[in-house]
Amino acid sequence: MTAPDGGPREGGEGAPFRIALLGHGTVGAAFEELLPERADVIAGDLGQRPEIAGVLTRSRGDFDDLLGRSDLVVELIGGTDPALDYVLRAMQAGKHVVTANKQLLSQHGEELYAAAAEHGVQLRFEAAVAGVVPVIRVIAETLAAAHIDRVHGIVNGTTNFILSAMARSGSSYEEALAEAKELGYAEADPTEDVTGKDAAAKMAIIARLAFGAPVHLDDVPHEGIEHLTGEDIAYAEELGLSLKLIGSAERQQDGIAVRVFPAFLYRDHPLASVEGAFNAVTIESSAFTEITLSGPGAGGPQTATAVLGDVVSVMAPPPVGPPAPVNLSLVSDIESAFYLHLEVADRPGVLAQVAEILGLQGASIGSVVQKGIGDDARLVMVMHPVLESKFRAAVDLIERLDFVRSPPRVIRVIEEVF
Amino acid sequence: MTAPDGGPREGGEGAPFRIALLGHGTVGAAFEELLPERADVIAGDLGQRPEIAGVLTRSRGDFDDLLGRSDLVVELIGGTDPALDYVLRAMQAGKHVVTANKQLLSQHGEELYAAAAEHGVQLRFEAAVAGVVPVIRVIAETLAAAHIDRVHGIVNGTTNFILSAMARSGSSYEEALAEAKELGYAEADPTEDVTGKDAAAKMAIIARLAFGAPVHLDDVPHEGIEHLTGEDIAYAEELGLSLKLIGSAERQQDGIAVRVFPAFLYRDHPLASVEGAFNAVTIESSAFTEITLSGPGAGGPQTATAVLGDVVSVMAPPPVGPPAPVNLSLVSDIESAFYLHLEVADRPGVLAQVAEILGLQGASIGSVVQKGIGDDARLVMVMHPVLESKFRAAVDLIERLDFVRSPPRVIRVIEEVF
Repeated sequence: MTAPDGGPREGGEGAPFRIALLGHGTVGAAFEELLPERADVIAGDLGQRPEIAGVLTRSRGDFDDLLGRSDLVVELIGGTDPALDYVLRAMQAGKHVVTANKQLLSQHGEELYAAAAEHGVQLRFEAAVAGVVPVIRVIAETLAAAHIDRVHGIVNGTTNFILSAMARSGSSYEEALAEAKELGYAEADPTEDVTGKDAAAKMAIIARLAFGAPVHLDDVPHEGIEHLTGEDIAYAEELGLSLKLIGSAERQQDGIAVRVFPAFLYRDHPLASVEGAFNAVTIESSAFTEITLSGPGAGGPQTATAVLGDVVSVMAPPPVGPPAPVNLSLVSDIESAFYLHLEVADRPGVLAQVAEILGLQGASIGSVVQKGIGDDARLVMVMHPVLESKFRAAVDLIERLDFVRSPPRVIRVIEEVF
Repeated sequence: MTAPDGGPREGGEGAPFRIALLGHGTVGAAFEELLPERADVIAGDLGQRPEIAGVLTRSRGDFDDLLGRSDLVVELIGGTDPALDYVLRAMQAGKHVVTANKQLLSQHGEELYAAAAEHGVQLRFEAAVAGVVPVIRVIAETLAAAHIDRVHGIVNGTTNFILSAMARSGSSYEEALAEAKELGYAEADPTEDVTGKDAAAKMAIIARLAFGAPVHLDDVPHEGIEHLTGEDIAYAEELGLSLKLIGSAERQQDGIAVRVFPAFLYRDHPLASVEGAFNAVTIESSAFTEITLSGPGAGGPQTATAVLGDVVSVMAPPPVGPPAPVNLSLVSDIESAFYLHLEVADRPGVLAQVAEILGLQGASIGSVVQKGIGDDARLVMVMHPVLESKFRAAVDLIERLDFVRSPPRVIRVIEEVF
């Protein structure tokens, strides 16, 4: 079921699986870079080696020629023209299609789904909705037989970055937008993002999958974030609320409602803590309460990862358990950050002596809290990452110091790497 | 790709797809209840109607007879004996298997994966790791071709409930455990949970999928939460840390490391805010930074939903886009909670008059903040859910009151339903 990739693989040449790559922007270029890095592993697992048969851009390549030499089309052009024509022609020619194109699916979804069914080809589009966050697969496959009541999503990273910045620094909408542009989180013309139209396209796609009803982009009323003020956010904080641009698709008595609007969330809502350019989607059902998926919703390598996941799903037969095992040794002594809690006599030089022993083992102190309690003191510190065996050796020495009153307490600390 | 279920379906009888249900505990009973509720929708989409061919428990049913009358075996007995024997015999007979059995997979995984491959049957086990949270599918399918660096998970709801209770109320481990037992979040004998052994089994399964290396339960060192104190949590809070029982599987220079241990997380780590009996898993990669999945990790209906998702995946051919559309009208006037921000003259009776107009439209005030600013005041309130058209009508009336100084500001508020 998965791609083990711990060590070098034998052979694994396999027959080529030829991919026509349409479009060569950020995601297209990232996909072209990612594919050869992972081709050996895929070939080892599936017996077929994916390769780029050719790239079509406005200035190079011939579509019909490329189509004839391909098994699958990856469409990363964006927009509807000429993407719609290419995708339809690919399916008519019996080729599978993987696309990241939210405009195409939210405006021509029914035509495309019908064409895929008619020609018996797969149409996959995980990357169209929330980058590498697997919203489509989870709704369409894990929850294929579940009764979904409601989907709430933060499906636009630009606006979430802006609202996070306003909440964090108290800046105005204009200042936060300028910051987002400077850092590359907003485009020069951010209209599609800040008006909620981008999110509306994604919610149209999600609603079709969650509820089965055709929803066109034009059916999705959307409000944006342009009129929000720092004052709204400040007052809401007093009420325990945080402000997000929310896409919503929910079942109603007489149908469904699909909309995009700025909304306040209570602090314990799973979307309330989603900060910066991340995307997240919460799927609610009376059967299973809620599932939340979060991660980067944009970015070349991230989106390319989602595209490649779809390509592999097209290539793969239904899973019969994971592929044959690889050889990887199990390592037990690894680097971690640690929390160390000491009860010590409250006298000069204690911290210095503890720090020296730690330092001799290569362990350095990240932060420390010291508190007097009568004649004693508590010394609580968080260490920077260090090899566990070295840290344990230092703690053994520290435990034997005469000013240490009780056994040291050690707990690992996990830091984010990325 | 998905199961639309907005309205009554035509016919949809279809050929029966016969399921042997092994085990009838909490999850088995929930599955037996869920299946007929969803069978019409599944039959409509896939042309085959899933049905229970029979139930095998210690006291009723004959395995060989049941197997002969089934297309797929759902194993919900738990433990390795007799589950291992049944599952192997099912696969030898060419039947697909869906299981929620973490003990089985973490102790006999290689034998089972090899048997599935040998007999060309599917073996699916989403529910074995984190209930309805789709960890297995996302690692094995969405990220099949991705290079995963590390997986961190809160994969045991009992211990997360206990640690959340200790952090929230300052209670001791013993008090929090007693509360968990009382509320049904811990079993009478919680040993497997509190020692970290349950989490270790789940991490062994995850590590096999993420890295391809066979990992047996016995290979996973695990520490539990029995020795943690409220004091550790209190000190850590000063350092901005929150305490969780973490399962970790990560790539090292020379192999992989798979372990379970209590750990402190910095507040902005995606797992730091996972409270109560929820499960969550963060998958890290230099290619896509991180994806986090969260939701209920246990519970009969939740786990049964995951089992049914696997059953449908076995039944379904590869997706060719979502099933034919259903008819569902798009509703635009729906109930929401609202935030209302008014600038008003600071004089007696203002709040009363505003509340009266809201009340006449059926809108009641949930919370309110009033602040004087010179001669004026700001009145900020959050309303209980009300039909949008009625609320907007009330706001139109309020805007015309002589003491209202500027246009009212209205933003929706999302509350959790479950």
